[in-house]
Amino acid sequence: MDYFPSALENLIDKFAMLPGIGRKTAQRLAFFMISLPDEEANAFADAITDAKKSVEFCTVCLNLTDGEICVVCRDSRRDTGTICVVPDPKGLLAIERSHEYSGRYHVLHGVISPTNNIGPDDIKIKELVARVSDGSIEEVIMATNPDTEGETTARYISRLLHPFGIKVTRLAYGIPVGGSLEFVDDVTLMRALEGRLEM
Amino acid sequence: MDYFPSALENLIDKFAMLPGIGRKTAQRLAFFMISLPDEEANAFADAITDAKKSVEFCTVCLNLTDGEICVVCRDSRRDTGTICVVPDPKGLLAIERSHEYSGRYHVLHGVISPTNNIGPDDIKIKELVARVSDGSIEEVIMATNPDTEGETTARYISRLLHPFGIKVTRLAYGIPVGGSLEFVDDVTLMRALEGRLEM
Repeated sequence: MDYFPSALENLIDKFAMLPGIGRKTAQRLAFFMISLPDEEANAFADAITDAKKSVEFCTVCLNLTDGEICVVCRDSRRDTGTICVVPDPKGLLAIERSHEYSGRYHVLHGVISPTNNIGPDDIKIKELVARVSDGSIEEVIMATNPDTEGETTARYISRLLHPFGIKVTRLAYGIPVGGSLEFVDDVTLMRALEGRLEM
Repeated sequence: MDYFPSALENLIDKFAMLPGIGRKTAQRLAFFMISLPDEEANAFADAITDAKKSVEFCTVCLNLTDGEICVVCRDSRRDTGTICVVPDPKGLLAIERSHEYSGRYHVLHGVISPTNNIGPDDIKIKELVARVSDGSIEEVIMATNPDTEGETTARYISRLLHPFGIKVTRLAYGIPVGGSLEFVDDVTLMRALEGRLEM
């Protein structure tokens, strides 16, 4: 027997579908949502559809953007000869927070992970090789997460880029092994950028 | 400088507004949302607007409903002479889960809380008194939360209902079944001793 209206049960189901949100939390969030004034709840719903509609991938670096080119690639003051390879847009944000890097990025949107059936062709490696092959790139900095999959991805890409004769470096192990880039503090990230090693 | 599209920042802000959701979690949820297929993300947005549109208060007990009368009040097998007073619809659900109660409910939608500026007129006490004053009610069971505010609310309502000469009871205090004596707080133990029953 359902004690709540089906529209409310449905909303609870939707919240429970989100990562890290259990049934109890979903219930609390759904109750909060229907307790909001109409305009605020509708603004929330609109924010979802708007984000889905307007967010695209930058045609250069595959960062998220609402135009064709992302805010980093549009910035003419940035060094176009260096590419920092990050696993996802959150990784990009983390590097930006260190204020130590002024080049451009390449967002892989994943890492090579045999256990999850993700191979090199499932992430944006081809696009990186295409960027490097035009000859204007001097250095590629691998900033994948400091775990096995990140390391594997970095080594794979490093080997792929070897024929181009460019410098390929990775973040120094100032970053704590086993952690996630997203949660590394700014100073540690700065040190990791300073101490990057040639691969 | 915003590294993410404004529509995405906006969605993160919306998630961060929800109770118990911090900035990092909001970011994770927003990223998850834009990674969903269009139809699923839109279904989420629709679930919010639908719930806001269709969920109303039962005209009898103020439980949430999508019709005029809620599913409990519609059920003719339930004892109409007993009202269980709960602070919110989640309290109603908790009592229903016990399968021990077959009467009706009254949902207060809050408790008296001077520190939060919530007085007796801000919650649905008038509506309860109106229901009791028609003479068909034999017992009112107070099932507010076992804290100071819940206790205060229960006492206030109990005094209000006194002139009607009906039975007003409250849920028993005592040690929780399945718990360990060692972790039960002193006040609960005191209440459990006070309310001890002959075996």
